[in-house]
Formats: sequence, structure tokens, C-alpha cells
Amino acid sequence: MPTKTDTKPEGSTPTREAEPLSIIGKPLMKVDAMAKVVGETMFADDLALPRMLFCKIKRSPHPHARIVKVDTSKAEALPGVVAVLVGAELPIPFGILPVSQDEHALSIDKARFVGDPVAAVAAVDEETAEAALEHIDVDYEVLQSIMTIEEALAKDSEPIHTGELHRGEGSVNGNVHKAVSLEFGDLEEGFAEADVVREDTFFFQGNTHLPMEQHSALASCGADGKMTLWSSTQTPHYVHRAMAKVLEMPPSMVRVIACPNGGGFGGKSDPFNHEIVVAKLAQKTRRPVKVTLTREEVFYCHRGRHPVKMWVKSGIKKDGSITAMHFRSFLDGGAFGSYGIASLYYTGALQTVTYKIPRYKFEGLRVFTNKPPCGPKRGHGTVQPRFAIECHLDKLAEQIKKSPLDVRLDKVIEPFSITANQLRVRTVGLKECLERVAERSEFRNKHGKLPKGRGIGLASSSYLTGAGLPIYWNKLPHSGVQLQLDRGGGVTAFCGSTDIGQGSDSVLAYVVAEELGVEVQDVHVVTADTHLTPVDLGSYSSRVTLMTGNAAIEAARRLKPLLLDQAAEKLQVPVERLAMAHRKIFDRDHPDVSMEFAEAVVLAEARHGTLGSTGSYTPPRSPGRYKGAGVGPSATYSFSACALELEVDPETGMVTIHKIWIAHDVGKSINPLLAIGQIEGSVYMGLGEVLMEEQVFRKGVHKIPSMLDYKSPTFVDMPPVESILIETLDPQGPYGAKECGQGPLLPVIPAVAIAVYDALGVRIDESPVTPDKIVSALEGRLRAVTVPEYDWPPPVDVPPMREESSS
Amino acid sequence: MPTKTDTKPEGSTPTREAEPLSIIGKPLMKVDAMAKVVGETMFADDLALPRMLFCKIKRSPHPHARIVKVDTSKAEALPGVVAVLVGAELPIPFGILPVSQDEHALSIDKARFVGDPVAAVAAVDEETAEAALEHIDVDYEVLQSIMTIEEALAKDSEPIHTGELHRGEGSVNGNVHKAVSLEFGDLEEGFAEADVVREDTFFFQGNTHLPMEQHSALASCGADGKMTLWSSTQTPHYVHRAMAKVLEMPPSMVRVIACPNGGGFGGKSDPFNHEIVVAKLAQKTRRPVKVTLTREEVFYCHRGRHPVKMWVKSGIKKDGSITAMHFRSFLDGGAFGSYGIASLYYTGALQTVTYKIPRYKFEGLRVFTNKPPCGPKRGHGTVQPRFAIECHLDKLAEQIKKSPLDVRLDKVIEPFSITANQLRVRTVGLKECLERVAERSEFRNKHGKLPKGRGIGLASSSYLTGAGLPIYWNKLPHSGVQLQLDRGGGVTAFCGSTDIGQGSDSVLAYVVAEELGVEVQDVHVVTADTHLTPVDLGSYSSRVTLMTGNAAIEAARRLKPLLLDQAAEKLQVPVERLAMAHRKIFDRDHPDVSMEFAEAVVLAEARHGTLGSTGSYTPPRSPGRYKGAGVGPSATYSFSACALELEVDPETGMVTIHKIWIAHDVGKSINPLLAIGQIEGSVYMGLGEVLMEEQVFRKGVHKIPSMLDYKSPTFVDMPPVESILIETLDPQGPYGAKECGQGPLLPVIPAVAIAVYDALGVRIDESPVTPDKIVSALEGRLRAVTVPEYDWPPPVDVPPMREESSS
Repeated sequence: MPTKTDTKPEGSTPTREAEPLSIIGKPLMKVDAMAKVVGETMFADDLALPRMLFCKIKRSPHPHARIVKVDTSKAEALPGVVAVLVGAELPIPFGILPVSQDEHALSIDKARFVGDPVAAVAAVDEETAEAALEHIDVDYEVLQSIMTIEEALAKDSEPIHTGELHRGEGSVNGNVHKAVSLEFGDLEEGFAEADVVREDTFFFQGNTHLPMEQHSALASCGADGKMTLWSSTQTPHYVHRAMAKVLEMPPSMVRVIACPNGGGFGGKSDPFNHEIVVAKLAQKTRRPVKVTLTREEVFYCHRGRHPVKMWVKSGIKKDGSITAMHFRSFLDGGAFGSYGIASLYYTGALQTVTYKIPRYKFEGLRVFTNKPPCGPKRGHGTVQPRFAIECHLDKLAEQIKKSPLDVRLDKVIEPFSITANQLRVRTVGLKECLERVAERSEFRNKHGKLPKGRGIGLASSSYLTGAGLPIYWNKLPHSGVQLQLDRGGGVTAFCGSTDIGQGSDSVLAYVVAEELGVEVQDVHVVTADTHLTPVDLGSYSSRVTLMTGNAAIEAARRLKPLLLDQAAEKLQVPVERLAMAHRKIFDRDHPDVSMEFAEAVVLAEARHGTLGSTGSYTPPRSPGRYKGAGVGPSATYSFSACALELEVDPETGMVTIHKIWIAHDVGKSINPLLAIGQIEGSVYMGLGEVLMEEQVFRKGVHKIPSMLDYKSPTFVDMPPVESILIETLDPQGPYGAKECGQGPLLPVIPAVAIAVYDALGVRIDESPVTPDKIVSALEGRLRAVTVPEYDWPPPVDVPPMREESSS
Repeated sequence: MPTKTDTKPEGSTPTREAEPLSIIGKPLMKVDAMAKVVGETMFADDLALPRMLFCKIKRSPHPHARIVKVDTSKAEALPGVVAVLVGAELPIPFGILPVSQDEHALSIDKARFVGDPVAAVAAVDEETAEAALEHIDVDYEVLQSIMTIEEALAKDSEPIHTGELHRGEGSVNGNVHKAVSLEFGDLEEGFAEADVVREDTFFFQGNTHLPMEQHSALASCGADGKMTLWSSTQTPHYVHRAMAKVLEMPPSMVRVIACPNGGGFGGKSDPFNHEIVVAKLAQKTRRPVKVTLTREEVFYCHRGRHPVKMWVKSGIKKDGSITAMHFRSFLDGGAFGSYGIASLYYTGALQTVTYKIPRYKFEGLRVFTNKPPCGPKRGHGTVQPRFAIECHLDKLAEQIKKSPLDVRLDKVIEPFSITANQLRVRTVGLKECLERVAERSEFRNKHGKLPKGRGIGLASSSYLTGAGLPIYWNKLPHSGVQLQLDRGGGVTAFCGSTDIGQGSDSVLAYVVAEELGVEVQDVHVVTADTHLTPVDLGSYSSRVTLMTGNAAIEAARRLKPLLLDQAAEKLQVPVERLAMAHRKIFDRDHPDVSMEFAEAVVLAEARHGTLGSTGSYTPPRSPGRYKGAGVGPSATYSFSACALELEVDPETGMVTIHKIWIAHDVGKSINPLLAIGQIEGSVYMGLGEVLMEEQVFRKGVHKIPSMLDYKSPTFVDMPPVESILIETLDPQGPYGAKECGQGPLLPVIPAVAIAVYDALGVRIDESPVTPDKIVSALEGRLRAVTVPEYDWPPPVDVPPMREESSS
């Protein structure tokens, strides 16, 4: 199936004409910057309410065990303990709608990983709550535990889930969560056309988000019966839905407020046990209840990067064009579903978005194991295959003796095209990204020519700008914005979006200020509160700037004509000639003919009544019409290219990165400071993942559950980064903007492995690329990655995300 | 000028057809009731912020003095004192827009009453702040003080205000704040037609609001430079404007949040010094600053009921019809303008709204004195003349030997008519009110027939349902409501209205729930926050139910069709046959054919995007076209009649009220429990005013500035009250509703004086009707009320409230 060209750009927000922008594109301060600098920002754990109790959660010490009996009587008798909660009190399962409703707030039948919550205590202080946990007696019947993908696939393995919640799709023993097989075009034909056909295997180790802020949640049950939850969550709307379901309350009686997140990176995207637990304890005790996870608990409840084994087979012609690709991924999902089905599909979806791949087959499998559940982390599901594909491509290039730069440049996906797997691509700035980093890094002069021990690597990637499918019914807006104009000149912008540090509150303020011609500080941003703000699905999939940006533009453009009409009448200037900026409405041709924004609001309010509007954004439907087509489509895609130069000590295997050049097709940078901040953050996180981070377990117990042991780069480990913003003005994005918060992480990881090969001639096909692996490889002792046996195609295939008939 | 009949009812909200109401008219709980009962409600003084400072205010001990020097150095040096503020730091005057901009946050040139603020301290605790006041040295040059209306009018009196702020309209010495003279029709002709012409004089003593909650305000200057003020105010919008002006900040940088008021009664309607003082101190110190007035300070800063001397001359025919009325009022305004110009006009405006008065002349004068400024109190400006007019009418009735009931019934104003002073009257339920209280009290059997010492009194009245003119430019909406629908079935209602205990939050929730067919608890009421809510002018003039109610109906009815269309399509029922109630949309003819409200929201959101709307209310323009016509008009008027039976001990003069019957034309009771609560509260407050309350001064010092000394009725003093709701379904009101929070106070006061006459044959023409006055009257020692000399018409007359060209 050849790549089609889709020549007709479409989109709800056409790129603006040449009109100068007064706010967008400027390096402005974040709206919450000063509050964070002076310590005014209240994170969830900073909150305190009168009569507040503290919650601690008792967790399973066994990776897999039947819960025979939970005796809370001694704990309840402890002075200072106000309530103890067990799983039977919260029998309704929850999780990610609609398919992964497999968790209970507290385990009822079984503990499925070390750290699985079994009971909870609310007490007058943290110490008493902690002490009370010791007085809860749990009888366990220890079961065989499943620690690897291979164990999960073994025919005689103990099923982790039984009954209705999971049907073990594609599995004889129930431990396959989901198996998928999708083929686009005739692969055999493709391989036959190729000059070289090559197979490789890779392993990407799991790792975690490591946000500075631990998860924290405070629940308060009002005298009016309404439940309020403040939480460090990225997805207040999903938490709202989960809480209403589990607590059996009308959604209107539940309010979820996402506090400013001290980092999320995907790790606060699930509705969490502890959020529901404190809500139920607040109901039981009629007192506010707060829980803040310890750092160790965060390591256990993380929902981090899946460990993934991968196999890839590609056919390539001598000119470098790919004729076909067959890709298999095996995901170690941990104990629950979480967003795992999306993670699984994502491992297969975007291969085709980066490069022209005319025939493509994807087979993927996610299994349950007795480890903490994995879920989304920055670059959700695409980081692992990108590592594999870029390393694989480097090997292919070498085999056909082509420059790894040219091999990439030649096959960059066409703008405004549809991929083999039916994803609609719009603007593509990848060629420019590649050329710019190659030029700045002097890649052509250096590659293969640096002294031994020194190497340069290059990789590219693409990423989503928002998911095409929400976690539930897909006809509803993904983002809504409501505006309100005050006759004093203020503008209030209500939006469900959640600022997790990425600056979404700021972007909302910039867009509204730009559209209405006010100053940024005139915009009062009210976000992430399910009582006050229209739904925004959450801060994930790099969706917020595009979706809330477009919603804000729509809302503002519904108000603008009301103001401009009044100004035109008062100033006696044709409305087409009026512009708005910096609290003025003025004649473009005679800027001194102007009036105050606030005066126009007064005139318009006198004419039209109270001034408010709504805007919303629903992504375009994917052209894909196959099962699973809903995971992967995006309104548009970002592109990145990274080059980096490093040195490896062949004795110790220690890697020193000298410099990183990264170019990112951001569409349009709403604020270059924020865009570069996101790029640098992504680069640093990618470096951590490739050089040192790993979330690893021994008999189900986390080996390094502390910030001291879990190695992650600090400031001093970081090389200089040169960030290059490429603007392609995407017709789908607000002012042309695309994502920049996740994509730039992707190419960094393979670029390191590739540069290590350039430096020393050894291929490290599994992450992290640690000194011991390099030394082992140099000594010829590094074992090849093996992928599990599995009898493809899977015996069962069902649509992964069925539409709900209503929310 | 005869009373005209205006037969064409008009209005934005026609009375609903016979469709049954599911929420409106039901005795539901207030939405904030449980929070108040359990102590969850946070009043302003309950708030605390990290690093908060406490403010105390230094006040003048002199009624009138020039401020020569303020030395704060010793106070500043005191440990724990963070800042001291003096008047020169806040040079911009404020007050009630647009005419009374005569106050400074701290006095600069002069102290004009005992209690006038001169300096303020912010310190780490209240005790330190209090102690620091003693270390502020103020040099005063004491000036002649003016303590009575007569002293104010004396040619040689010291002018309290000089310079630009007041021009001393109608005065040679500058102490007349405002003089007004308005004549409608040929009075001499009217008096000539009369059978009896009678003149009387009356005095109504000043009194105060005595809310349970003292004024309190907390200011915090955010790291982003935005100022937030939480205050126990009835008018956050006016405070917002005043703060932006005095602090010289763009209004968008100021946020005012009115906390739930623990009673207001008009006493929290002004922007207050202390609100601006804490804001400035928060700017100076970069820390939150809170002030809570002491009870004594509340007595001094009250803005309470004006002491008013009145003279009235009426001509009446033997059949009881009035031929002409000439009414003069002399208001002791205290030291500042406040809402005094409105108070002045109100003393003359509503005489014609109650009874048919074909020819009417009103002359009024407000003077400055060196006492705390007077302003609005429940029944603003109409309580004093109503006392005079009803007592005067009782005397006239006696003189023409007609029953005081019949004399009133005969002359009740016609519905849908225009009065002599060009006020537009709509529904009038006064006849039914009079008949019902007369019947229930057996007035005809008892009046003049009870044993000596026992008496029955009857009086009637009318009151505004919202002012026709805002305090500034009158083309802007007076109330706005913004709605937001959540796909979970919740509805958020944003409105600037301020719940001061009267239940406005509840009424907003009832109206929205009724219109959209949800439960009251599904409506999240967000009010009184200038950043979150559209403007509502404030809780005064009994305007909130009518204005926000209409705005809410408009907003809801803009969303309703979107939902009904979806339901019609889904249910296959014609949209005209659909009704909404209790979270369902159903076929009126087959109520089991129904769908959930939330489902309709989901369908409508999928079709139309994020669902929100605005609604607003601007009162109809008054037909009056004379200077001053803007004070008095109302969208519609409420009516009340009161009968009460009492006993007076002729030895001691002690009055015991046995029972009160009160009927009130409420238009339509939105919630009978709340309506009756408002009526009972009004009756109790009226009884306090007529029997015991008086705000009196000796040499400028309040004689009884404590709740122990200031006599006000308690629970045990209260007689049984029988409240009767009369519904006239006014076309202007939401569902026909009119006011009920102030009007019922009015007839209680004259009814007591009239009943005392019925009991003992003595007329007490001045309030309060205390035992000593009764005994003096019985002994023939009670001196007649005299009114001041004044050379009518006043030399100057200017429009009292000019329209601003913009806000």
C-alpha cells in the first residue's frame, strides 16, 4: 500500500495572515512564574483544612498473593485513628475508560504487585496513621509470581486477572492483556523488492517519571454533601469520572481540582487508588483527609515506561528506500491495564509517520506481570520503538553504505500525506530539522571520522500533537474554553486544562490576550477545576496547546466582532481596518485613532448584555477504518532531529556527552522560552533514560526505590544543548503551533547508542546504555536481546477502544 | 397631574403559562444552610493566609479637627510593627460614584467625626497593632463641631467640607450636601379642593444595622502583582471600582471577593476605608493584611439610618381621597456623602407609590454634621417618611371620621399606572394585603373598641424591587449570569451577586434548576467574585432576586433549546411537548418517555461544542424626565400591610406587642420559607427601630456603642408574627417575583405608634416610641417636633446623578 499524498490542507484554524502578533511568539514570562519563585504556589501537599486527617495506605509485601483476611480491629482501637478502610467498602472497579476497569481502590481478592494497596487509615497525624498500618493484620496466601514477559506467556503461569475484568485476549493463560496484529500492504512483496532485508532485536528497559512532587490528594466532603478532591493529577476530568463511579455519586456532586503539578510526565495521568481512598475516608469520617505518598510509594505506583522487547525486520533498497517493515513489540505491563492498550498501539503506530514506509506490519502484545503497572511516560509508547527503529536504520545504512544522514533525509515522510497505516500527516519540518542539526554539529565532517573513543550520532523522530481518540466517546470536544469579559477590562478564561509545569496556563493567557488585544495580566486563568471549568481531557499526549489553544481562539473570536463593531462605530473606522493590541483597538492605518479595550467592552455590554462565550476543539476524525485505527492519529505531528557528540572511556565504559544539537518542528512557537524549556527538559529526560535510569525489580521488590539510588542526571551531568526551533505553521495548530513537550525526547536515546557505535564500534541494543554494557560489548560478552515466543497472529482480536454510546 | 393608567404590562420575562414548577415555590433548604449550621462557612474574619499581618486603625477622638501633624516614627519603631500608613499615601478620594467622591482611606486634612480614621498599622498580631496605635502622635487643631441639622444650617457654622469635593448645594455655609425641590401638579389647586388640610411634623431617630458579623477584610498582593481583597461587603463590584481608583491599578489587576456576609442590612454597601487600607498595607508590606473592626468601630462606621425631621401637609376630601400632598424632609447626613443623595430622594419618592396622590410636592435637604456618615439601611430612605405618612394618615382619617382601614383601601394605587412623580407601577397587591391583615386581626371589630391600654394599629407601605438607576452609567446590565454545562450533568452558575444571608445564592440555584430541569444540588453557585463572575451591582435595593433571577432565566433559556432539540430527536417527541424536571427531559403527555438531562447535555455538546451562555438584566427606563427622576423608579414595587395589637402600661409606658399580622405582595414566592424568613426578619428589625433602637451621640461620641448598651430586641422580646404571602405574578419579576426583604419592615413602625394612640390616645410622632415618651405624652410633657428653618426653594439645584459617559 503506497504512501498517499493528501494535498488539501484542512483544519479549523487556518494560519493567520501576515497580521503582526503582539503576544504570540514573544519570550514572555510564565503567568505563574513569580508565584513559583516566591513560594506562593500551593501544591496539593501544601493544602490544609480545619480538622484535616492524614491517610496512610497499607500495601502488599507480596508480588502475588490471595488476600485471605484483613483484620483492622487493632488499628481501629489505636488512639488517634479515626477510620480504617478496606477494599470491600469500595467494591466498584475503576481504571481507564472504557476497557481497563480493572483496579480497586483497595485490593479485595488478591494483591498483584508489591505495593498493591490493601487497607488505609485516617488518623489525626501522619505518625499515628503510619503506626496504625502495623496494627492491620492481613493474611495472605502467597501465589506463584510472574516477573517477566516470558513467565507471563508460559502456559502454566498463574493468571493474574481472572473473571470479567480481563479476558486475557490472545492468551491461553489469561496473562496476555492485549494482542494486536495489523498489516498494511503486502509485506512479502516488499521484502522481495528489497536489496537488503535485515532483522534486529532490541530491549528498552522500564523507567519512571521521577517528578519532584510526590502524588498528594486532599478530599473534603462538604456539609452540602458535595465531595471536593484536590489532587496532583494531570487529568482532573478522568479522576472526576472515576470518583463519581466508585463512590456511586452523581458527577455533579463531585468536584476535582487539579493543583499545580510539581511535574507529571505522564505519571499523574491515571485516576489513582489514593485519590478514591481519601474521598471515601472523608465520607466515612466527615473530616477532610489528605494523603501524600512517600517517595518509595511513588516508585511503586508510578505507571512509568513499559519495558519492551522488540523485533524489527525491514527491506531496503540500495538507494536507501524502505520497501517493507515488520515490527513486533512485547510490553511488560505490570499488574494492571492503566493506559496500556494505548501504550501497546503506540509502539506500532508512528513508525510510518517519520519515514516513508509503503508496506507495514505491526504485531504487539502486552502482558500482565506481578510488578507495578506501567502506563504513559513522556513520549508514551513511542520512545521504545524509536530507539529500535533508529538503531536498526543505522545498521541498514551501514549495510548499504549510505550516510545515516542521507538515508534519513531521503525517506522523510511527505507533508500532507496519508501513511500506510492510514494516519493523516500534515506539515513536516523533519528535513529542515535534520539539515540544521547536521550543519550545526558538522555531522558530515565528523561521522566515522572522529578519533576512537569519540563518536557522533544522529536520529530523528515524530510525535503526536494530541490524541485523536479520547479515552471515551469520541464525538465530544476534547477541550473547552469559556470566556467572560469584565467591564473593567479583565478577561476570565475558564478551561479544564492542567498546568503540570509545561506552561499551559500561560499559553491560554497568551492566546486570549493575543486574540482580544489585552495584556497577558488582564487574563485571569481559571483551570483544572471540574466545577468551574469546561472539560479539557487532561495534560497528556501533548494535546493542550493545540486543543485549548484552538478552543480559546474560537471563544475569543466569538466575542471580538461585538467589540470591533462598537469601536468601528465610535471611531468611525471600517471594522476591517481595526486591530487590537495592548489594551487598545486602533485603526491599522492611523494607529493614533484608537480607543481603550475596556471602553469597547462597556459599549458592547450595553448593547449585547453580559459578554461571555465558549469555544471548543474536537480533533478531526482519523481516515483509518480498521480496528485500532483510533490509537495513533493526531491532528498533526511534530518532528525532531538530534545530533550529539560524545566520548566513551573504553576502559570504564563511562560516556561523556559533549554537546547536543536538537531541532524541533514546533509548527509555531507560542513562546520561544517555553518551547526551548520543553525541548531542553525532554533532552535531559531522554539522556537520563539512555544513560542510567532503570526501574528494576528483584522478586517483585523495587531494587532502587529512592532518589538516592535511582540514578537520574542532575544539573552537573548535563551537556550543553543547542535547541533549534523550526516553524512550519501547521494549519491545525493555533497560529500554526504543534507539540514540543515530548517529541524532542525521542531521538536523544537512539542518538546516544548510535554515537557509542561511532566511537567504539559496538552496538548496544538495549537501554540504558550503561558502562557495564559497553565494557561487556567491547569484551564480546554482551548477550543479544531475545524476544519471546508467541504464536502470531493472536487467537483473538477485539476492538481495543469501543465507543461508548454516551459519556 | 392625575394618576395615569398604564394598561400595557411589559417586561422581559412574561409570567409563565400554567406549566407546573418543580423547584420554584417549594419550601426547599437554602443551598448554604448546612454549611452554616455545621460552621463550615468561612466569613471574612475566618480567613487566614501564611505570613498574614493584622491591621488596626487609629481614629480621631474629635468630632471636628484639623490634622496638623501625624508622627508615626515611634509606632514604626515598635517591635512587631511592619508598616504604618497615613492619609498622604492614599491621596485619591473615593466614595459612591459619581457624586460622592468625598472620602479618603485615611483622613488627610481634617477629622470630620469621632472615629474618622487617621492612620493605620500592620503588625504581626492584633495586640501589637493595637499597642502601636498609642504610639502614633496626632496633633489636632480642634474646630467648632456641628451636631444637629439646625447647627448645620446656621449661617456661621464651620464648613465640614471645603474645596472641590462638595459644593454645598443649596447652602450659604457649605454644610448642605444636597437640597431638592420637586413639584408635580398644582398643589394650591389641590389644597383648595380639599375638605380638610392638615400639617404634621415628625422625627425619625437614626439607628444602625447591628449585623452579627463585624466588618472584616483581608487583602493579599499576589506575586503576579494582582491584588485580592476578601471582604464582608454587600457590593464587591463597587469596592472593585473604588480600589482600582484609589490604588491607581488597572481594574483587571484587582480582585474583590465578597465573603458570605453575617448580616449586612445596607451597612456593608459602601466601599470602606478599611478595605482600601489593608490593600495598601498589603502592597507596602508584600504580606497579606487583615482587619476586623471592633464592635465599637462598627457603630462608628455604620452608614446607618438617617435621623430625619419631616413636615407633611395634605389635603383630603370627606370621602378620604387625597387632593394634594406637600412633604419636606431634613436629613442629618453625618460627615460624608455615602449614598446620602439616594437616601434624600428616597424620602420623597415613594409616597405616591402607595396611595393615589394626584398632586405632590417634595422638598428635601441633606446636611453634613460631625457624626458618622449615614447611608442605606433596610428600607433605605423610605422608612422615615412611611412612619410620618401613615401616622399623618391616621390623624386625617380620624379628622374625617373614616375607618383607617377604609381610608387606605380607597386610595390604594392603581395597578399598571404612572404616579404623579412619574414612577411606573405594575402589579399592586396592597388591597388584598390590607384586607387579609384586617380580617386575620379582626381589625374592624377591635379598632377603637379595645379596653384602655390595649390598642390595634394598621399601616401599609410599598417598596422598590431594585433601583432603576445604577450608581453609575445606566445602560449597562445591572446583573449578569454566565452558565456552564458539564457533560456529567452539573451546571455552574456564575453571578456577581452577594449572599448576605438573604438567600440569593439559593435563589440563583433554584432558578437555574427550575429552568434546566435539574436538581438544586446540581447547580454550582459561584458568586461575588469580580474575577470569576459577571457584574452584579450588589445586594441592595432588594434588587437581587428580580435582576439576577431574570438574568439567570435568560442565560438558561439560551441553552434549553440546544438540549430539547437533542432530546426531541432522540425521543422522537415534538419539542413543544417536552418538559424538563428533576434531571429528566420527558414527554409531557407520556412522562415515561424520557431521557436523562446529562445525556441531552452530551448530545448537545457533541453537536454544538462546549455549552455555556450568558444572560443579563437591565431595568426598564423610568418614564420620569425631570432632574432626580432616576432615584425612585423600580422595575416593580412590593406592597405590605401590617396590623398589630399591643398593650401599654400607662404607669411605665412599657409596650407589649401581642401579635403582628403582616401581608406582603411578594409577586411570587420563589421559596415561601425564605420569603417568610425575610418578612419576619423585617418585622423584627422594624419593631426594634420603633420600640428601642437609637444611634445617638453626645459631643460626637456615641452614647451606647456596644451590643450591651444599644438596645435591640432579642428572641424573647418577639411577639408571634403571622406572615401572609400575596402573589400578584408581576410581569417584570422572575416567575412573577418581587422583593420581600425590606418592604415588610416599613408598616410595622407606624403601626406601633398608631396602636399606642388606639390604646391610650396619645400621639408619639417621633421614633423610637419609648416608654419615657409615652409617659411624657400622657403627662402632656412631650414636646412637638419642630422642623428647621430653610428658605425654600433651594438656591441651587443640579442633577444629582449624572450619567457617566462610560464606566
